Amino acid sequence: ARITLLPGDGIGPEIVAEAKRVLDTIADKFGHQFETPSCPMGGNAIDEFGDPLPPQTLETCKDSQAILLGAVGGPKWDDPSAKTRPEAGLLKIRKELGLFANLRPIKPYSELLDASPLKREIIEGTDILFFRELTGGIYFGDSGRMEHPDGEKAFSVMTYTTSEIARIVRLAAESARNRGGKLTSVDKANVLEVSRLWRQVAEDVVKNEFPDIEYEVVLVDAMAMHLISRPSDFDVVVTGNMFGDILTDEGSMLPGSLGLLPSASLGESGPGLYEPIHGSAPDIAGKGIANPLATILATAMLLRHSLSLETEAAAVEAAVASVLAAGHRTADIAAGGTSISTTEMGNHVI
Amino acid sequence: ARITLLPGDGIGPEIVAEAKRVLDTIADKFGHQFETPSCPMGGNAIDEFGDPLPPQTLETCKDSQAILLGAVGGPKWDDPSAKTRPEAGLLKIRKELGLFANLRPIKPYSELLDASPLKREIIEGTDILFFRELTGGIYFGDSGRMEHPDGEKAFSVMTYTTSEIARIVRLAAESARNRGGKLTSVDKANVLEVSRLWRQVAEDVVKNEFPDIEYEVVLVDAMAMHLISRPSDFDVVVTGNMFGDILTDEGSMLPGSLGLLPSASLGESGPGLYEPIHGSAPDIAGKGIANPLATILATAMLLRHSLSLETEAAAVEAAVASVLAAGHRTADIAAGGTSISTTEMGNHVI
Ligand SMILES: CC(C)[C@H](C(=O)O)[C@@H](O)C(=O)O
Ligand SMILES: CC(C)[C@H](C(=O)O)[C@@H](O)C(=O)O
Repeated sequence: ARITLLPGDGIGPEIVAEAKRVLDTIADKFGHQFETPSCPMGGNAIDEFGDPLPPQTLETCKDSQAILLGAVGGPKWDDPSAKTRPEAGLLKIRKELGLFANLRPIKPYSELLDASPLKREIIEGTDILFFRELTGGIYFGDSGRMEHPDGEKAFSVMTYTTSEIARIVRLAAESARNRGGKLTSVDKANVLEVSRLWRQVAEDVVKNEFPDIEYEVVLVDAMAMHLISRPSDFDVVVTGNMFGDILTDEGSMLPGSLGLLPSASLGESGPGLYEPIHGSAPDIAGKGIANPLATILATAMLLRHSLSLETEAAAVEAAVASVLAAGHRTADIAAGGTSISTTEMGNHVI
Repeated sequence: ARITLLPGDGIGPEIVAEAKRVLDTIADKFGHQFETPSCPMGGNAIDEFGDPLPPQTLETCKDSQAILLGAVGGPKWDDPSAKTRPEAGLLKIRKELGLFANLRPIKPYSELLDASPLKREIIEGTDILFFRELTGGIYFGDSGRMEHPDGEKAFSVMTYTTSEIARIVRLAAESARNRGGKLTSVDKANVLEVSRLWRQVAEDVVKNEFPDIEYEVVLVDAMAMHLISRPSDFDVVVTGNMFGDILTDEGSMLPGSLGLLPSASLGESGPGLYEPIHGSAPDIAGKGIANPLATILATAMLLRHSLSLETEAAAVEAAVASVLAAGHRTADIAAGGTSISTTEMGNHVI
C-alpha cells in the first residue's frame, strides 16, 4: 500500500518520522509492504513552490491508499495580507479529496486523568466520537465584500444540501450503532434556516435507516455547555463544519493532553487523511521533545480505516497504552516529572 | 423611571416577582419612583395573541428606560413546524430596540467555586466580561431554501458591516479600559471573509482610539479551548453574534452556578434589556424553588447601565454577595445541602 507522508511545518517532520518508524515496524512484523513517499505541504511548500499544496503533492496523495499529515503553519506564514497561507492547503486537500467526514475521538487515558482541567468525577468515563462535516457549510460557501454606506460589508454563506447532510449523518449513525448506540446531532435550528434543513434531514436518515439507535438533537450553544458539565453522557456526535470546528476543539481540552489526540478525515472512497489534532508548535520545533503519540495514534486510525488492518491498528494502540501505563512521558504530559525525547517515545512504542 | 417587566414563561414570573420586590425596596430606600408595567412575551403571548412579541408589548418597552425579562420558551411551544416560536420574540425585541451589545459577566463567587466543573486552580481568579454582537451576523442575514438536484439546499448568510463591527468593539474597548485593560477579539479570520473584515475593523478601532489597552486576537476554535484551560487570562472579550452565542454559553458553565449569571443587552440609546442567562426551566416552574439571584443581579445591571444608579446597583450586588456568604442556597446551588425557596431567597436579599 502507498501511504503518502506530509510532514509539514514546525514539529511536523519530527513526529511524522516516529510514525513512519512505527509503520515500518508494523510492515516487518505483519508482513506488509508500505511505500511511503514524502511530499511538501504547508509553509515549507509556500517557501519552495509558492503554493501550500503543490499539484505534485496533490497527485501523489490522490494516488495513495492513505495520507499521514504532521502539522502545518507557523508565525513565518501568518501574515493575513499574504497571497496564500498554509491553511489554504488544508482546506484544498479536504475539498479535492472529498474528505467530508472528520472523525475525532475524545477519550482520556485513565493514567492521565489528572491532567484534565475538569474535575475527575466529571471527565471520568468520557468516550465521545465526533463526526464533523468537513467539505461544506460556511467554510466553502460564497463569500465576498462590497461597498456599503458605512464602509464595507462582508459576507460568508453557510449552506448545506440534503445529500451533504445525509451522508455525514449516515456515517455517524453507523458508527453509533457499532459503539454505544447513541447519536447526538448538533445544530442551531431555532435560529438558522440551514440548521432547520440539517435537523430535518438528520431526523429522516435516523428514523428511516437507524430506528434502533438512540437519537437526540442539541443546540450548539447548549452543547458547548454540556461538553463541560456532562461529557460522559455522549457517544457519537455529528455536526456541521463550523460548529464542529469549535466543539471538537473545546472537546479536545477535556482529556488535558492535546498531544494524544488523533483525527481522521474520510471521503466516499479514495484515500483518507490522518493527523494529530495539535498544531505545528513552532516554539519547540527542532528540539526533539515533541510528543509523537497523537501522530502514532493517527497512524493506527489509518491502518484501521483506510487499510482495514484492524489487528495492526489495535497493536499500535495497545503499544501506546502500555507505554503510558509504564509511565513514559514527553514533556507536554510529564506534569513537571521526568520526560523523554520524541525518539525515545517512538522507541518505546516500537 | 419606567421599567417594563416581561416575566415570560416557566419560572419567569416567579423570579421576576422577586426582582420586582428588590426594585421596590431600592425605590423605598433611595427615594425613587419606579413604574413597573408587566407585559406578555414569549409562549404565553403566543397563546394569548398568536405573537411572541405583541405590538402592545413592544410599544410599552420602547416607552421605558429599561426592560427586565424573566425567561421565555418551553416544550409547549417547541414544535419546529409551528408558525411562530418564543425565540422569535427574543430576536425581534433585540432588533427592534437596536440592542446590538450583549454583555455577559463571568465571575464565579468564591463561596461557590467548588460547584465549578473545572478544578479550583483553573477557575480561580476568572473575571471575564463578554461583549457579544447581538443584532447582526448570521442571525439576521438572508436565509432561505431552494430546489437542488439532490433534494434541497438551504443557506444562511453571515454578514457584518464596518460600522456594526466598530460600534461593538468600541464599547468593549471602553469597558476594557475601565476594567483590566485587556481586550480579546475572537473571529475565524483564517477561513471566513466576514471575519477578515471583523479583524481589520477591530484592529483599526483599537489602534486609533484605544492605543493604551492591551489587545489580542484569538480564533474561535482556540478560544473554545482557552476558556477551559486558562479562563483567568481574559478580561474583556468581544465577538460576533454566533460565536458569542456559543462562547458565552460555554463560559457560563465555568462558575458552576448558572442560576447566578445575569446579562444586559444595550443599544446606542433607548432602553436596555436585562435578564438572567438561564432558561425558563419548565420542569421546576410553579414549585417556588427557582433561584431568583441571576434576575436580581440583572436588576443591578439595569440600575447601573440604564438608570445610572451605581450606588443602588452596588447595594443590590453587595446584598447578593452577603446572602451567599451567609450560606443561603436555593436547590440549584445547594449541592445536596439545605435549600430555601425562591421567596425566602428574595427576602434575604431584601
Ligand atoms: C486551520 C483551520 C483552517 C482548520 C479549520 O478551521 O478547519 C483547523 O482549525 C482544523 O480544525 O482543522
Ligand atoms: C433562544 C436563542 C434564539 C438565543 C440566541 O441564540 O441568541 C439564546 O441562545 C441566547 O443566547 O440568548
